[in-house]
Amino acid sequence: MSRVRVHNLSVSLDGFATGEGQSLDAPFGHAGLRLPAWFFATRSFRQMQGEAGGSTGVDDAVAGAWGTDIGAEIMGRNKFGPQRGPWEDHEWNGWWGPNPPFHTPVFVLTHHPRPSVEMEGGTTFHFIDATPQEALRQASEAAAGLDVRIGGGPTTVRQFLAEDLVDHLHVVVVPIVLGRGERLWGGLEGLEGRFDVESVTTPSGVTHVTFTRP
Amino acid sequence: MSRVRVHNLSVSLDGFATGEGQSLDAPFGHAGLRLPAWFFATRSFRQMQGEAGGSTGVDDAVAGAWGTDIGAEIMGRNKFGPQRGPWEDHEWNGWWGPNPPFHTPVFVLTHHPRPSVEMEGGTTFHFIDATPQEALRQASEAAAGLDVRIGGGPTTVRQFLAEDLVDHLHVVVVPIVLGRGERLWGGLEGLEGRFDVESVTTPSGVTHVTFTRP
Ligand SMILES: NC(=O)c1ccc[n+]([C@@H]2O[C@H](COP(=O)([O-])OP(=O)(O)OC[C@H]3O[C@@H](n4cnc5c(N)ncnc54)[C@H](OP(=O)(O)O)[C@@H]3O)[C@@H](O)[C@H]2O)c1
Ligand SMILES: NC(=O)c1ccc[n+]([C@@H]2O[C@H](COP(=O)([O-])OP(=O)(O)OC[C@H]3O[C@@H](n4cnc5c(N)ncnc54)[C@H](OP(=O)(O)O)[C@@H]3O)[C@@H](O)[C@H]2O)c1
Repeated sequence: MSRVRVHNLSVSLDGFATGEGQSLDAPFGHAGLRLPAWFFATRSFRQMQGEAGGSTGVDDAVAGAWGTDIGAEIMGRNKFGPQRGPWEDHEWNGWWGPNPPFHTPVFVLTHHPRPSVEMEGGTTFHFIDATPQEALRQASEAAAGLDVRIGGGPTTVRQFLAEDLVDHLHVVVVPIVLGRGERLWGGLEGLEGRFDVESVTTPSGVTHVTFTRP
Repeated sequence: MSRVRVHNLSVSLDGFATGEGQSLDAPFGHAGLRLPAWFFATRSFRQMQGEAGGSTGVDDAVAGAWGTDIGAEIMGRNKFGPQRGPWEDHEWNGWWGPNPPFHTPVFVLTHHPRPSVEMEGGTTFHFIDATPQEALRQASEAAAGLDVRIGGGPTTVRQFLAEDLVDHLHVVVVPIVLGRGERLWGGLEGLEGRFDVESVTTPSGVTHVTFTRP
């Protein structure tokens, strides 16, 4: 059975998964890099960047589950980049350079579709205006039996959770108070009821919380 | 040095420390008893109730720090009871029966002061309309060199945090999504910057997060 998974989604104590005011220089807005700092320190992340080193403890083990058996990703348009409204810079192909770390088809949700872009290393960005169900249908087909990852940001993940389309959700509670930005949890009252929930704090101070469909 | 402390304050993943619709039958409103369930299971809580039994692991050890060296508590009027506006039931002396577990002076913040009430076992409820600073001055005087606990609810704790009057904050993240109620974290952006922060998850699934002034 192919599953729908969310991994390494960092949220603050007050429930924000990104800050306010995203820009080219600040992918997470005023949050800076405090949300993904635990992830950037891991070997899994370094390897994704083609770099050596990084921590190899529990944070790394959990982070590394990200890619296993994934055949396609769905992401929101704001994870892809800081442009809003009709595309003005058609050269923008994401934050990740010519060889993005996905290595699968990636479906970018947007109300402003544009032609698909084939990158190096197996990543192709498809831009689609679709409901969560329809996006998942397309991504599942592309994944050819493998799992589909919902890559974020919070606006996108929230939609798939609200429609009960997610089988495994891994959030990482970072002990900071962001105050503003985009909340993950809106409209998801009682979410825990549909899942088996586990939590573990690691020495970096973050708490990994997994919601797995029984 | 006498300190100002908050203990055992349970918050949901989405940052609520109580639900919506408090009433006599539902002290936490629609949240039921899901926020304090971890605490009710401990020996510390059972002892407070004059009962035997209860768990004796890390939850209990952390919960038990509640009373040590405390000379007075400050609480909000909604922690004291479900009445709003001018007091109609003057017989109401809190949820805790004739011998409340505080055993110190307790200052209840309210815009509707009423005469003090002396209970059994050393608890006296004083009802004061005061700023956080003024309430703390009165409570510190009553505590005679011991620490002052800010007992909750969230509206009250938030005020003392916003005024930077708290030296030790212990929150307990319960992995549930409440959706509505009273948020703890509003207006506290960057709170972590003033504290040393530690986190630990226990087998009950909650995560204890402590903020201690360096
Ligand atoms: N905390 C983490 O671990 C994590 C993970 C990933 C990303 N992030 C951060 O999160 C931020 C992005 O999150 P976000 O919540 O702002 O936005 P997002 O989910 O990345 O993208 C939202 C946008 O995607 C488009 N979209 C979403 N659903 C759609 C649908 N069903 N149909 C058509 N278009 C749809 C809309 O854009 P248009 O209407 O403009 O086309 C919408 O404004 C970034 O700052 C990123 O760095 C954080
Ligand atoms: N999660 C936990 O661990 C925990 C801990 C304790 C309590 N609780 C729950 O939290 C809820 C109560 O929290 P809450 O945030 O609703 O209310 P609260 O903080 O207990 O009380 C707020 C009320 O106290 C009065 N007040 C507060 N500050 C004041 C000031 N500076 N001057 C004068 N009056 C002031 C006001 O009442 P008036 O204007 O009406 O007088 C205000 O509406 C209850 O459901 C309780 O069960 C949860």
